[in-house]
Amino acid sequence: RINGGRLWDSLMEMAKIGPGVKGGNKRLTLTDEDKAGRDLFRSWCEAAGCRVSVDTMGNMFAHRPGTDESLPPVTIGSHLDTQPTGGKFDGVLGVLGGLEVVRTLNDLGIRTRHPVEVVNWTNEEGSRFAPAMISSGVFAGAYTQDYAYGLADAEGLTLGGELKRIGFIGDEPVGQRKLKAYYELHIEQGPILEAEECDIGVVTHGQGQRWYDVSFTGFESHAGSTPMPRRHDALVAASRLVLAVREIALAHAPHAVGTVGVMKPYPASRNVIPGEVSMTVDFRHPDDAVLAEMKARMEAEIAAINDDLGTSVDVEEVFYYPPVPFDRACVDTVRRAAERLGYRHRDIVSGAGHDACYVARVAPTSMIFCPCVDGISHNEIEDISQAWATAGADVLLHAVMEMAEI
Amino acid sequence: RINGGRLWDSLMEMAKIGPGVKGGNKRLTLTDEDKAGRDLFRSWCEAAGCRVSVDTMGNMFAHRPGTDESLPPVTIGSHLDTQPTGGKFDGVLGVLGGLEVVRTLNDLGIRTRHPVEVVNWTNEEGSRFAPAMISSGVFAGAYTQDYAYGLADAEGLTLGGELKRIGFIGDEPVGQRKLKAYYELHIEQGPILEAEECDIGVVTHGQGQRWYDVSFTGFESHAGSTPMPRRHDALVAASRLVLAVREIALAHAPHAVGTVGVMKPYPASRNVIPGEVSMTVDFRHPDDAVLAEMKARMEAEIAAINDDLGTSVDVEEVFYYPPVPFDRACVDTVRRAAERLGYRHRDIVSGAGHDACYVARVAPTSMIFCPCVDGISHNEIEDISQAWATAGADVLLHAVMEMAEI
Ligand SMILES: NC(=O)NCCC(=O)O
Ligand SMILES: NC(=O)NCCC(=O)O
Repeated sequence: RINGGRLWDSLMEMAKIGPGVKGGNKRLTLTDEDKAGRDLFRSWCEAAGCRVSVDTMGNMFAHRPGTDESLPPVTIGSHLDTQPTGGKFDGVLGVLGGLEVVRTLNDLGIRTRHPVEVVNWTNEEGSRFAPAMISSGVFAGAYTQDYAYGLADAEGLTLGGELKRIGFIGDEPVGQRKLKAYYELHIEQGPILEAEECDIGVVTHGQGQRWYDVSFTGFESHAGSTPMPRRHDALVAASRLVLAVREIALAHAPHAVGTVGVMKPYPASRNVIPGEVSMTVDFRHPDDAVLAEMKARMEAEIAAINDDLGTSVDVEEVFYYPPVPFDRACVDTVRRAAERLGYRHRDIVSGAGHDACYVARVAPTSMIFCPCVDGISHNEIEDISQAWATAGADVLLHAVMEMAEI
Repeated sequence: RINGGRLWDSLMEMAKIGPGVKGGNKRLTLTDEDKAGRDLFRSWCEAAGCRVSVDTMGNMFAHRPGTDESLPPVTIGSHLDTQPTGGKFDGVLGVLGGLEVVRTLNDLGIRTRHPVEVVNWTNEEGSRFAPAMISSGVFAGAYTQDYAYGLADAEGLTLGGELKRIGFIGDEPVGQRKLKAYYELHIEQGPILEAEECDIGVVTHGQGQRWYDVSFTGFESHAGSTPMPRRHDALVAASRLVLAVREIALAHAPHAVGTVGVMKPYPASRNVIPGEVSMTVDFRHPDDAVLAEMKARMEAEIAAINDDLGTSVDVEEVFYYPPVPFDRACVDTVRRAAERLGYRHRDIVSGAGHDACYVARVAPTSMIFCPCVDGISHNEIEDISQAWATAGADVLLHAVMEMAEI
């Protein structure tokens, strides 16, 4: 069993870096705070006897040797970056849970045949630089490194430039590392496990996602003297799309979700009819065919909006990945570990995207979920109990020991 | 008759200060650009033999003596500030049209019994500091000066601080000046005059306005793993209000208008359900009872939205003024001048708010509209013809000569 107190202390220590305003964290990827979190992680890994290497996407790998170093490692991890108003556990639990596995193997003097590695993936959240999970994506060949380096944040700073600025462009070419298997422990970020009083979610699939940048163009004019029938109000168009996105998701209940998180009207003056609005759309569903249907229906709604309002639109799909079935054998090691340890568990589909969803393209992969209070995540008040964190890391330890062969 | 070429040249000269990106202007109130515009106006007034005084709200008055200096002045003017993406004529035509009247009186050696004054009112647009027309409002006793000084822009800078910074807090106490009458020449900012091929709008009323700051609070959470029925999405609430505002205006056709110009979701991350949205609402109608009905219906819609979505709201009315009937005798001088000069004219209600609407509380007031291309205003491409500007300033000259007694 892992040391739950030590894991919790490390989580609380990491949460001191980039504190939020409501008890959570603001440690956006490739900021100074992210760098401080990376440095702390590296020092902990080295103290645990690991060698840390960094690849050209800034992904960090802490290596605990196996008895046969010619074998590929069993890799465990997640991400240390957070949302602008993020919680203390989203991602961090997976990285520090991985570190706790290494520390526990050290404590117990357990040697594994395969090396064990702990990874911190760069820019999982996708909030500062869309798309999300870009660096595990490049690792898995879903994107080129050049594409990733060129991504710009709202201030126009690029991912490549910021990676260099904080000193985290490593010399290992991204993606060259072969993995025996990949495990990711993560909070569920949804309400199911807590509601069903399960300690462990055995994640069998990740749902598919489609992300869009949408920009409506109407016609700026005076709010007081432009009669209603003469208006081409880009914000009315955008608002109709917000409601349509919700309707489309509700029409594919219970699994579909649809969200508009960003909306920026221009020129943003209270007595000017907005002439332009840029916004985002995020659609998800476990079934790729349904996801395609949601996209098609959105396109039809947008066409109807433009017809009615005399607006025009620019739609770009900035992110798409189909639903991911995780590796059957890997998933079985997780289920067996939960059973062996006596934790209540159930199979579950991941609502969120995770680095595991990309890594699954190049290595046998699975995930372990632990519950979070009220299913709340991407919110500073995101919370878990120490017992939940401990159960998750215990299952991780046992799955890894089986896969890495003790 | 006034000198149309000279008026046009002055308009084009002023438009060089604070150029926009699409041929219009960005000369937001109390910025360095506004200061440059004020300095240019002052130098022109002084060159025309006027004494310029500034009151404690930064309102500028250029004085052309009358033959009886004990009599109150006939005052003409408007504003030199613009929207963030404003046109070259909105407000500027009224100020420089006033200056052209003075220059023409000088050219022709015409002495009036009453002094004639040209005024530039501070912060008419209300875009940087809401409410609009604040300084003519303080002049007319609608607001206290302390209230106005305390207004903050989006960066938290105050109107009082910015007035001081650009050196335009004058020593004349605001509102002490008594006026014989006030005339304001302005572009219509709507489509009626052009459509009906009229050169002149004789403005009989200003419509009433109600402006709101609305802020919805929902609950931030994860866009991928929060099931639709568990959401409290503040942006869905705000979008429903955008559409409700439009419906409310359409329900009171043809005169009602309703606009949402500003909308800011928080935390504005594409995979986070917005937990908060702040937005503005602008309602207008020529009939105060209808305006009150529009407000009541908005409140009912907001209550229904909160009921449906489990959101909560904060609503503040930041601006209200009832419809303004202009002074019958003043309006008659405008209509007579248009007739005398042979311009096609019609009576019209102002869709926009104007400084004249406040000044009407303390002096006999009326307005003159000239057409603008396609009714477009609060847009950089706002345009008028030199002939329209000339006609408007001609009518202004004749109305002023009658009122100031030549
Ligand atoms: N786990 C997580 O929050 N990932 C961010 C990408 C997503 O929105 O699913
Ligand atoms: N004339 C004008 O555009 N005034 C600004 C205040 C308003 O929105 O009516």
